[in-house]
Amino acid sequence: MRPRFTLDALNAAQPDEFAAALANVFEHSPWIAAAAASARPCASLAELRDAMIAVIDQAPPERRLGLIRAHPDLANRTRRAAGLTAESTAEQDGAGLDRLSDAEFALFEQSNGAYREKFGFPFILCVRRHTRDSILDTFARRLKNQPTQEEREAIGEVGRIAALRLAELIDSETPLPINGRLSTHVLDTHAGQPAAGVALELIELSRHGANRLIAKTATNADGRTDGALIEGRPVPIGTYELRFHMGDYFLRRGVALSEPPFLEMVPVRFGVSQPEAHLHIPLLVTPWSYATYRGS
Amino acid sequence: MRPRFTLDALNAAQPDEFAAALANVFEHSPWIAAAAASARPCASLAELRDAMIAVIDQAPPERRLGLIRAHPDLANRTRRAAGLTAESTAEQDGAGLDRLSDAEFALFEQSNGAYREKFGFPFILCVRRHTRDSILDTFARRLKNQPTQEEREAIGEVGRIAALRLAELIDSETPLPINGRLSTHVLDTHAGQPAAGVALELIELSRHGANRLIAKTATNADGRTDGALIEGRPVPIGTYELRFHMGDYFLRRGVALSEPPFLEMVPVRFGVSQPEAHLHIPLLVTPWSYATYRGS
Amino acid sequence: MRPRFTLDALNAAQPDEFAAALANVFEHSPWIAAAAASARPCASLAELRDAMIAVIDQAPPERRLGLIRAHPDLANRTRRAAGLTAESTAEQDGAGLDRLSDAEFALFEQSNGAYREKFGFPFILCVRRHTRDSILDTFARRLKNQPTQEEREAIGEVGRIAALRLAELIDSETPLPINGRLSTHVLDTHAGQPAAGVALELIELSRHGANRLIAKTATNADGRTDGALIEGRPVPIGTYELRFHMGDYFLRRGVALSEPPFLEMVPVRFGVSQPEAHLHIPLLVTPWSYATYRGS
Amino acid sequence: MRPRFTLDALNAAQPDEFAAALANVFEHSPWIAAAAASARPCASLAELRDAMIAVIDQAPPERRLGLIRAHPDLANRTRRAAGLTAESTAEQDGAGLDRLSDAEFALFEQSNGAYREKFGFPFILCVRRHTRDSILDTFARRLKNQPTQEEREAIGEVGRIAALRLAELIDSETPLPINGRLSTHVLDTHAGQPAAGVALELIELSRHGANRLIAKTATNADGRTDGALIEGRPVPIGTYELRFHMGDYFLRRGVALSEPPFLEMVPVRFGVSQPEAHLHIPLLVTPWSYATYRGS
Repeated sequence: MRPRFTLDALNAAQPDEFAAALANVFEHSPWIAAAAASARPCASLAELRDAMIAVIDQAPPERRLGLIRAHPDLANRTRRAAGLTAESTAEQDGAGLDRLSDAEFALFEQSNGAYREKFGFPFILCVRRHTRDSILDTFARRLKNQPTQEEREAIGEVGRIAALRLAELIDSETPLPINGRLSTHVLDTHAGQPAAGVALELIELSRHGANRLIAKTATNADGRTDGALIEGRPVPIGTYELRFHMGDYFLRRGVALSEPPFLEMVPVRFGVSQPEAHLHIPLLVTPWSYATYRGS
Repeated sequence: MRPRFTLDALNAAQPDEFAAALANVFEHSPWIAAAAASARPCASLAELRDAMIAVIDQAPPERRLGLIRAHPDLANRTRRAAGLTAESTAEQDGAGLDRLSDAEFALFEQSNGAYREKFGFPFILCVRRHTRDSILDTFARRLKNQPTQEEREAIGEVGRIAALRLAELIDSETPLPINGRLSTHVLDTHAGQPAAGVALELIELSRHGANRLIAKTATNADGRTDGALIEGRPVPIGTYELRFHMGDYFLRRGVALSEPPFLEMVPVRFGVSQPEAHLHIPLLVTPWSYATYRGS
Repeated sequence: MRPRFTLDALNAAQPDEFAAALANVFEHSPWIAAAAASARPCASLAELRDAMIAVIDQAPPERRLGLIRAHPDLANRTRRAAGLTAESTAEQDGAGLDRLSDAEFALFEQSNGAYREKFGFPFILCVRRHTRDSILDTFARRLKNQPTQEEREAIGEVGRIAALRLAELIDSETPLPINGRLSTHVLDTHAGQPAAGVALELIELSRHGANRLIAKTATNADGRTDGALIEGRPVPIGTYELRFHMGDYFLRRGVALSEPPFLEMVPVRFGVSQPEAHLHIPLLVTPWSYATYRGS
Repeated sequence: MRPRFTLDALNAAQPDEFAAALANVFEHSPWIAAAAASARPCASLAELRDAMIAVIDQAPPERRLGLIRAHPDLANRTRRAAGLTAESTAEQDGAGLDRLSDAEFALFEQSNGAYREKFGFPFILCVRRHTRDSILDTFARRLKNQPTQEEREAIGEVGRIAALRLAELIDSETPLPINGRLSTHVLDTHAGQPAAGVALELIELSRHGANRLIAKTATNADGRTDGALIEGRPVPIGTYELRFHMGDYFLRRGVALSEPPFLEMVPVRFGVSQPEAHLHIPLLVTPWSYATYRGS
């Protein structure tokens, strides 16, 4: 999906055109874009986002609460049938919320209920920065918040959602730092060269539902993958496993292996905590040893 | 189970006492022990085993075939109900053949059938040297054998079974090299010292059935386990996973970790191909990196 | 030094201008450039070099021998006083041949003498691809050659020297693959991030003379050096040591160390065998462990 | 040298025999042994040592100072000519103090002078726990002490010297924890087995004098050395280099290497800070990579 606007065009647009263009940046709350029109021109996307956040910060408390209440519950089937914004649907689907196991769905229902009961408004989270597991972990953590503190966290997430929506809508030479990257590199330290043609998968692990295949590819001549495993979007917080099929690789290279091989599929399990960072997971490997580390 | 005899006592026993003592070393074939009595005295357990194998080698072909046919099918429920020797039952149970999944059971039935059809005798394997996966792999490999070649392999396995039974029955200062060892060691290279108190599990992996927990323990002050993970028996051929719970360990040590931690449970997956060897799987680990290798 | 010509200009030049421009590409042998003028236009630098080499290959044997004889002895003080071409002087100085120890000088004299005696012509080597040690090793190896074989090796080196001179003289969008690169990267696997501010040196080791400091620098925020340790030229064949001052680094980071530290200066000693390749030497290091490997 | 006494015999000896036997445990101070006789019987060597230290602690200050003054200067040629006790000579020679370079000797003279000037008594150090470098470092550190603090440190060292002398004199089933150990292990992770026959040296490094070869050996079939590199004595505080000749090893194994090899002699440089500890320095190595760590 190509951005529909340029920052220059939005700076030059009539206030109502501007407001219409950005109406959905905040869920069911076009008043924010309308009020931010007067802050133009904005020199960068970050300036535009800050201007919109400032509108929220300066709004009366009831209006802020209204903004929060305008958001849908996460993974709520009834409400979804009734109609989410297209933006919310795409975001929730991206996080796998449309393919929950029964156990996961039950946990989401229960978390939504407990949260609403305590705070009186829906749980807001920028789900594109999260996996199913980390959404449930965040539910648990934030349920312990005091109401004021939680309202602040909710507004913070509203800002993160807005930043991702702005980045999709608007082309700019000063992009927002919203994208992370997850990459790998396989070094064959038996041969002293990059390991080419190693089949590998990236799996998102789930405590309560099915694991999810995120990428399935093979290393190129440089021992890397053509394109990062995840790039051009946040790397969702969660736990993953990289599976490197080293047995097949060494067999193809003609190395004498035991039967079964000492190393066949090498799993590397790791946590992602910073969705906007560059995370590099190399594998240094022989048929009899391997090492991995958090690189950058 | 303590051995019931000493080699010295067996060397000194009357031929019929000797034959009775070792009657079950070969399945339903007391004639082998009876004939081996005249080879005494034996200076070592290995010499005794070799004398019994020599009896088989020198027997007429029909007798060798009879020995093979005296063995039970693997994992055969009907036959088991009818009555295996106590030795066979214990050996098959040790390999997990009493807890097969339905899929595994079907595969064993089918393998037994195909094997009997081709060779006309039951499949013999020293199952204490194998996991369920490697039994099925061996079935597949040996089904491709020529009959003469396969008879040789079957007799070879009969000898391996006998060696294990002899070692259980007889105390000797010259033990047979039938036992392997699987051990681990966790080095905390963040602190520069052994990692004490790391919870870990050893899992036997299965392609067609349930994985099986082999050991659940924790490292001691020296970063090792009190007692090897497997010792005093063959380490069954197969694929395993060691699971090191490093996140909890580093949390307890007070190291600042990300949320979720980069490393929480570290899985090390490896193949065992030599049941009688010493296999050492160390883990060198910081909160951000680890390495492992086949040690000895 | 910026190239003085472009390939386009040389393609368009009068034959005598072309011959004058490239007269010194082959030592005291302007006839090669003169003869190669008719091979123009050349689509790339490689094509131009090949055209000049073809002139040599097609020349009568005496002429080829004359070309070889036109080269200076390596590291010959008398001859240098008498006058080397500026190109030869720069190349030999670059390899450290102007700063030989007495022992090294004696070895060079002796090698030159033995070589001349056997082959009747001077030893030719593209010294910019070599260290003092590897020049002496190459002397020893090539002294065992048969004369015909050695003449071929000598002409091969003439071609390598010419390629480097062409690359310095001529600007082209299709550069010759004459440059290697040597780089490093320090990963602090205690902190899980690049190690910034690590002082390091690259030393060229010598068996017979003084070691030579090639680079002295420190890592940047990314754990790399600003610019590779060696780039824009061949990485001379030889043995090197990288010295990483990790003790100071970890002290500055506030890590509790023993006294003296377990790791203070970490030496990594390695051989370079491919001057035109990219060689990457990473260091993964905690206060209590490190690992390195040939990366790319 | 076998111990001359047993603890039992000393417990049973007449007071004057006891005093004579242990007269030299404290330099030129037989009164300590004499006074400690009444503390017998001692259940362990540690109890005996503590009894002797208690004598010093309870002595009048002048006597304690006399004990300190009875010690020789370190590395003092004049005094040595005049006559050190045999114990002191052996200890100082063991630390290499009889083979100082001129620069080192000058530093020792200067340190001795500055120390005597500040404190009025000789510098006492249990030199068998130190290398030349660490003696000089300790001089520098202790010169900054206050006199009372320094007297305490001096008496502490007197106790360490006494413990080593007691351990040499007396056989006991409860030895004092005075010995450390330095060992190594070479794992060939290219072949997945211990590296046998690797030539290696242990060098004590010196900032001001010549490095000193401590051990020169080769690995056995288990990749270890027959006997630790240092054992049965303290491992002197200082900086060392282990040099592993891996190029020769891999050549012998028939591995295809580059010319020169990427790894030929692998130096591992490390500091020792705990003379009584077990320090294990493994090398995990392929022709293209290696790792090392402080093991135990």
